[in-house]
Amino acid sequence: MTHITSPKNPRLKTLRRLRGRRERDRSGRFLVEGEDLIAAAGAAGRPALEGYRLAGSGLGENDFFDVERSALGAVSTLGSSTRVLAVYEQHWATAVGPLCVYLHGIADPGNVGTILRSAQAFGASCVALGPGCADPHSPKAVRASMGAIFAVALAHVTDARDARELPGERIALRADARESLRALAGEAGAQPITLLVGAEREGLPADVVAACERSARIPIASESLNAAMAATVALYEITRGRSDAPRSSRVRTS
Amino acid sequence: MTHITSPKNPRLKTLRRLRGRRERDRSGRFLVEGEDLIAAAGAAGRPALEGYRLAGSGLGENDFFDVERSALGAVSTLGSSTRVLAVYEQHWATAVGPLCVYLHGIADPGNVGTILRSAQAFGASCVALGPGCADPHSPKAVRASMGAIFAVALAHVTDARDARELPGERIALRADARESLRALAGEAGAQPITLLVGAEREGLPADVVAACERSARIPIASESLNAAMAATVALYEITRGRSDAPRSSRVRTS
Repeated sequence: MTHITSPKNPRLKTLRRLRGRRERDRSGRFLVEGEDLIAAAGAAGRPALEGYRLAGSGLGENDFFDVERSALGAVSTLGSSTRVLAVYEQHWATAVGPLCVYLHGIADPGNVGTILRSAQAFGASCVALGPGCADPHSPKAVRASMGAIFAVALAHVTDARDARELPGERIALRADARESLRALAGEAGAQPITLLVGAEREGLPADVVAACERSARIPIASESLNAAMAATVALYEITRGRSDAPRSSRVRTS
Repeated sequence: MTHITSPKNPRLKTLRRLRGRRERDRSGRFLVEGEDLIAAAGAAGRPALEGYRLAGSGLGENDFFDVERSALGAVSTLGSSTRVLAVYEQHWATAVGPLCVYLHGIADPGNVGTILRSAQAFGASCVALGPGCADPHSPKAVRASMGAIFAVALAHVTDARDARELPGERIALRADARESLRALAGEAGAQPITLLVGAEREGLPADVVAACERSARIPIASESLNAAMAATVALYEITRGRSDAPRSSRVRTS
């Protein structure tokens, strides 16, 4: 296998461009760094298109390129501590139920990645990204997702008006909604749902709210909750409402 | 008022040192950047010990120093976009109920700040920081707290064995607990509680678990939840268990 020593190697230059959104959008590929994330890709059955590992480390697949530390560090967004990198194809799907999360204007890649992780944790079927969202395939979002980028179905919603095509009953998460999320989750049963989450300050725009059957709030004492925390709490509440036995039949275990 | 033009100004040099934990620990002070956070301090009745603003901006208090942009940018952890900075006294208290959150080994300052914010959102009375936690007064934690650093009482727990002095019934959040958080929250009523949260991979150490009356888990489909998300969901569940009317008496609002 080729042994790469120079950061000016043409393959590494192409790899480096994947750190930017333009090249990711153009190629439909993305860059993944570190053993844990590459293992998550493997667990999800997603093959690397190409891989690069620290020379002598023996990490990754047999056909990964061996790269000298300084050349590998020049590509990584994490610097010289990275020992393995790989390129994957982006997968995009149509938004599907039974539990879809729609994000609107969530511009912070860390928040998008965290929400992907929560979506996986609570068994959501899909995360749909509306206008103004950070690229879920950016290095920071991928890292925050802790591998959920490979496990959760992703959908694009390029026009907010298409929110009315999101699956199931659409529930807008809004600070000023009359109904609490818990009351609503108790009534929702097992029908398909899309949870719609807006940015922390701006919330959801009027045309997206108009596409929703219901609104719900998370009761809080302060002014606002981080968007990722709000989405996480909502996913927890909706999935608890679906799976928990009624209180009266619960057995004390302590 | 003095007009500061040089980044080598002795006051700015002292300020710069507050970016490091050593100087924060030594002085018992911390640095706050940006209008929103300084407004949050004001709303919490916490006076700035000293303040620095972009010359000509008129921001902050009357007695803030006017500083040239380049000199101010050299102090800020956010660079030249910062227009106002101030120094505050750290406040530390004894851990108090009725709802305290104890963190153990939460080393990421962003997670610590996010948990402070959730603690404020769900009306927790206190956040107690055990061994291995990031400094809640670091610039990154303060920023992630969105001002909650001024609103939530903070306590130190320097020795994990002191976990048995945390207020009320102590509930360890553990992935392998038999009881679900919801079952427990339904039973807990309004008695004082401390929720104990460990780091994502390591969890809570045995001596901290031994100091707890109960353990509870957040049911998830994936391997783990980020510590800030777990703490946020737990705070939500506990406070919902306290404030929500029983389901049968709820009124449909839609």
